[in-house]
Amino acid sequence: MILNFGMCFMKAYKTKVSHNENMKKLQAGYLFPEIARRRTAHMLKYPDAQVISLGIGDTTEPIPEVITSSMAKRSYALSTVEGYSGYGAEQGEKQLRAAIAKTYYENLGIEEDDVFVSDGAKSDISRLQVLFGSKVTMAVQDPSYPAYVDSSVILGQTGQFQKDVEKYGNIEYMKCTPENGFFPDLSATCRTDIIFFCSPNNPTGYAASREQLTRLVEFAKENGSIIVYDSAYAMYVSDDSPRSIFEIPGAKEVAIEVSSFSKYAGFTGVRLGWTAIPKELLYSDGFPVAKDFNRIVCTCFNGASNIAQAGGLACVSPEGIKAMHEVVGFYKENSDIIVETFNSLGFKVYGGKNAPYVWIHFPGQSSWDVFSEILEKTHVVTTPGSGFGPGGEGFIRVSAFGHRENVLEACRRFKQLYK
Amino acid sequence: MILNFGMCFMKAYKTKVSHNENMKKLQAGYLFPEIARRRTAHMLKYPDAQVISLGIGDTTEPIPEVITSSMAKRSYALSTVEGYSGYGAEQGEKQLRAAIAKTYYENLGIEEDDVFVSDGAKSDISRLQVLFGSKVTMAVQDPSYPAYVDSSVILGQTGQFQKDVEKYGNIEYMKCTPENGFFPDLSATCRTDIIFFCSPNNPTGYAASREQLTRLVEFAKENGSIIVYDSAYAMYVSDDSPRSIFEIPGAKEVAIEVSSFSKYAGFTGVRLGWTAIPKELLYSDGFPVAKDFNRIVCTCFNGASNIAQAGGLACVSPEGIKAMHEVVGFYKENSDIIVETFNSLGFKVYGGKNAPYVWIHFPGQSSWDVFSEILEKTHVVTTPGSGFGPGGEGFIRVSAFGHRENVLEACRRFKQLYK
Repeated sequence: MILNFGMCFMKAYKTKVSHNENMKKLQAGYLFPEIARRRTAHMLKYPDAQVISLGIGDTTEPIPEVITSSMAKRSYALSTVEGYSGYGAEQGEKQLRAAIAKTYYENLGIEEDDVFVSDGAKSDISRLQVLFGSKVTMAVQDPSYPAYVDSSVILGQTGQFQKDVEKYGNIEYMKCTPENGFFPDLSATCRTDIIFFCSPNNPTGYAASREQLTRLVEFAKENGSIIVYDSAYAMYVSDDSPRSIFEIPGAKEVAIEVSSFSKYAGFTGVRLGWTAIPKELLYSDGFPVAKDFNRIVCTCFNGASNIAQAGGLACVSPEGIKAMHEVVGFYKENSDIIVETFNSLGFKVYGGKNAPYVWIHFPGQSSWDVFSEILEKTHVVTTPGSGFGPGGEGFIRVSAFGHRENVLEACRRFKQLYK
Repeated sequence: MILNFGMCFMKAYKTKVSHNENMKKLQAGYLFPEIARRRTAHMLKYPDAQVISLGIGDTTEPIPEVITSSMAKRSYALSTVEGYSGYGAEQGEKQLRAAIAKTYYENLGIEEDDVFVSDGAKSDISRLQVLFGSKVTMAVQDPSYPAYVDSSVILGQTGQFQKDVEKYGNIEYMKCTPENGFFPDLSATCRTDIIFFCSPNNPTGYAASREQLTRLVEFAKENGSIIVYDSAYAMYVSDDSPRSIFEIPGAKEVAIEVSSFSKYAGFTGVRLGWTAIPKELLYSDGFPVAKDFNRIVCTCFNGASNIAQAGGLACVSPEGIKAMHEVVGFYKENSDIIVETFNSLGFKVYGGKNAPYVWIHFPGQSSWDVFSEILEKTHVVTTPGSGFGPGGEGFIRVSAFGHRENVLEACRRFKQLYK
């Protein structure tokens, strides 16, 4: 037997395919896997600690039975000749599209065929980016849900990351802070093709008012921009803030709405959402945006799971809506507990009222330092505000998704730490 | 009340967002929705006809109960405190990744963490295109599953469609015909970064031999290309053709494999697949492709439905594998019936042996004309070969996915038409 000593000196084979320059621009890991990594490291360090996660906005409460029984029924039916179905419409099942239009957009002029059912808002945000392509410019609230910026980077819409300002080139960061009531100063905002706007906002928990959204729609209309409105937390609104951008007159000509059952019914793992694109929304050449999105959905997607869609239909039944309100109500009570805790400790506390997120100010401190201190001293996982953009520096997001006893225990520990 | 007569003359509002040039390059509709449209039109024309669909490769047989009962059980469990789960790992549940690696890649060096669970092969093909970006060049078998080319167009990798040759610019079409044994002449194939290769092939039904795939891997290695190998029909292989590209020595340095439960377990509507990316696969700068794909999956996707994943785990249990083989066996009997029918009518018939597709030659005729004639005279929906690329012109794909009585009835009608 001849040993091939040459092997030892061989370098690894490399293809000649260039590493995508856009992927190389991305900084570190995507925020939430990074937090999961730190959480795991912490648990290894303190194997006996009772770690409580109020970090990633992940639902914890069981899905109401009226919904899971529909999914189980659909599962079983797939084993029968009469109940089996193969490929569904890429855009979603007709009945579900109609039910979503009726439930969330009645009298707002959004119809069944304007609704595209998806496997969740995150997937649809990327599909929208593929739709728009690399040549568009975009604006985001700062801070905002990181998938907007990261998907924009991946698609090649941005410049390099600029370490000094913690921003990517060629993105308009619209600062949203307590000083401006968490609504951007539009007079100082550059025109972009696309404006990502999330309300109630993740991470600040702030819901834009009707008057603010009216200004946003006017701004988009003047500039010929398209608003991608993320309403994933709309059911958490307690006051008279709009639940949909389409409540604003004229929005149908400038807006797309992305939404999800994740935070309403505990569907974070089941995966079901939707995107509404009005027929009135046109590119500069007059071509309907929805028509191109339909092509994207047919080519790059094959519809959401039929079992999840059966669950979606149960969600928007009268019993399902009632059950979802109970789930949402439970998390809103958690928000109240967290808000009261930090208020009692003398912090400036934002959000919570219209959203499952509480946004707490630690002036002059680094978010990651605060995150680390809280984790180290209380074994509670939060989310550092700066993970959502430079405008989030000095803040911590505490998620209201958690079992009641965990939220109460976390709040006891916060009181211990900051007393 | 003053009527605003001006309204009548107002033109529709247009945004100033440019219509994505890549989307504008796409020709007509995506193939299968176009066929669905023609089918619907036919049914309106002949409301009493018993239309049989052997067009789109859509499964028709119920999902084995061992699989659906797992999904139902998981659905119900989501209503319990112990059984509830929210966001899963974006890459898929650990247990399922391990089970897929063991079931399909044992002894091939593909490990649990090389497997990314998805909502189906079509979605993953687009995610791979996003990963590669707009700067790569690509090759496809001609004919081939249209999602490869269309997603390449959408991502901006191609030139305009050239009507005279029915091809997009900047794509290498590797002709696969009876003359070359449905395997491309690699000596006449230009180097590209990416090579999409589907075996057993959709639409020709041909499975590449070990010797052919060895040549393909050598070709990729010489050129530094990445093969995206679509093995969605691997369980249909009857002879000793490889079931996975990773059976070929050296493939781990040049290949990605995309696969799916759709055609094994009737999961076309449930939506579950996977992509395997070996750690050995590197970009020209030495960076692992899998590491970037992980980032894509975390940013642009949130994992497959947990209920579908419970089904996937049942699929790869010993009982599930047995049940899937029965489903696959049933469709293979359909293939035999279709092959025999067209053979008996004197046609040149290809495929069917290792795939659920039969590829029938109508020399000198237009595929769409044959499609229309068959639909008009037999009320059977097939797929025109030219829909899969210019190399498919003159062929018709007949799918073996159908209830037995429908396949038999369709074959009776074919015999009537071509007797």
